[in-house]
Order: sequence, then C-alpha cells, then structure tokens
Amino acid sequence: MERAALDRWGQGDPDGFLAISAPQVTYFDPFIGQRIDGLAALRQYYDGIRGQISIDRYELLNPQVEVTGDMAVLSFNFVSWTGKDEHRWNCTEVYRRIDGRWRIVQTHWSLTKQ
Amino acid sequence: MERAALDRWGQGDPDGFLAISAPQVTYFDPFIGQRIDGLAALRQYYDGIRGQISIDRYELLNPQVEVTGDMAVLSFNFVSWTGKDEHRWNCTEVYRRIDGRWRIVQTHWSLTKQ
Repeated sequence: MERAALDRWGQGDPDGFLAISAPQVTYFDPFIGQRIDGLAALRQYYDGIRGQISIDRYELLNPQVEVTGDMAVLSFNFVSWTGKDEHRWNCTEVYRRIDGRWRIVQTHWSLTKQ
Repeated sequence: MERAALDRWGQGDPDGFLAISAPQVTYFDPFIGQRIDGLAALRQYYDGIRGQISIDRYELLNPQVEVTGDMAVLSFNFVSWTGKDEHRWNCTEVYRRIDGRWRIVQTHWSLTKQ
C-alpha cells in the first residue's frame, strides 16, 4: 500500500495517499508549522502541491513493521532522486484496520541528517 | 509516561525514555543519518548525550492519541526553552502493550518548520 501510494506521489498525484488515509489522520512534514489534523485538512494541503512533485526514482530502505491486532507501525528511511537532486527522509506511518481496511492514522515525514 | 520521561530528559537524564522503550524500539531524530534499531543501540546513542541536555521549560502541545487494543500512537508538537533559545518539534510516539506494560516501539522526533 505504501509503495503504491508513493509511486503515485512521485508523479505529482497525492490521491493514492488520500485514498488510504483515515478520516482522523494526523500528519507531520518539515514544511508545516504544526500538525495537520484530519483528512479534509490533509486533502487541502495536498491539493496545494498537486502536480508539483516529480520523483524519477526512489528507494524505500530497511522497512520495519510492528503489528498488533488492528494497528501497525511502518518505519523506513527513504531516498528519492529528481534529476541530480537527492533527498533523504525518515518516515513513520501508523496504519489502523478500520472496517477491515488498513488506513493511515499518523504520518510523519522528516529530513534525514545529511 | 511521556511527560515523566520528558521531565527527566530535560535534566540530561535519558533513562526515563530507556525504561519505557521496548527491546525492539526504532528511533528517528534529526541528528542521525539512519534509523536506530533496538534498545541497545538507542542506549548507546543516548549515553553519548547523557548530561548534555538542559531544558528550562517545555510545552507539549495538542497531544492526540489513537488507540486500539495493544497499540497506541501519540503525536504532539513540542516547544522547549533553554535560556532564550526556543526549539520547536514534531513528535510521534508509538506505544505497544507488552506483558501488561506500555512500551515505546517507535519514536520519531523532527524539527518543526520555523
């Protein structure tokens, strides 16, 4: 699910992530001044950058999952390349199973120390 | 649990966090080049900065918890002051109940955009 959403993300399409995020999702990235709360607010934020992301290639490094019955936390390092630009990230995604479907309830992206 | 550990952290004592972290804990902060995996590695990292943190005052802003049976994710913004220096953070803490005790399995600290 994460890779499929990332594939779309890298083509400027945030709908992959929006489709797998829960209504109560909370969200951090390095470009916002405080946590974004809720799917409507996240959609508004993503709509503002729709079409502006272009990733030629990425690697999802060393993914690790800790899972209990209805919640799972995925963490990984992430490297993306656009032309000659390389970006390195830390990512935490917390998924919750809601009505039988896994949905993201917490996203945290940050820049890895270079 | 988080506040008690933070109180100790702000006095240079990382043992509060180490005591409530699970053996399989994974950890991100802005000062490391890749995720730290496991309590032994986290202890080694924290031992390297033991006694060097001094926080005069902090505020844990807008904490939100999403919980299922044996896992819970806490997210919050955090502001700390040391003298006149102010630092603003994003934080995600994933707790898992193990043998009846809540323990951190994933920590993610990052700097909030100023």
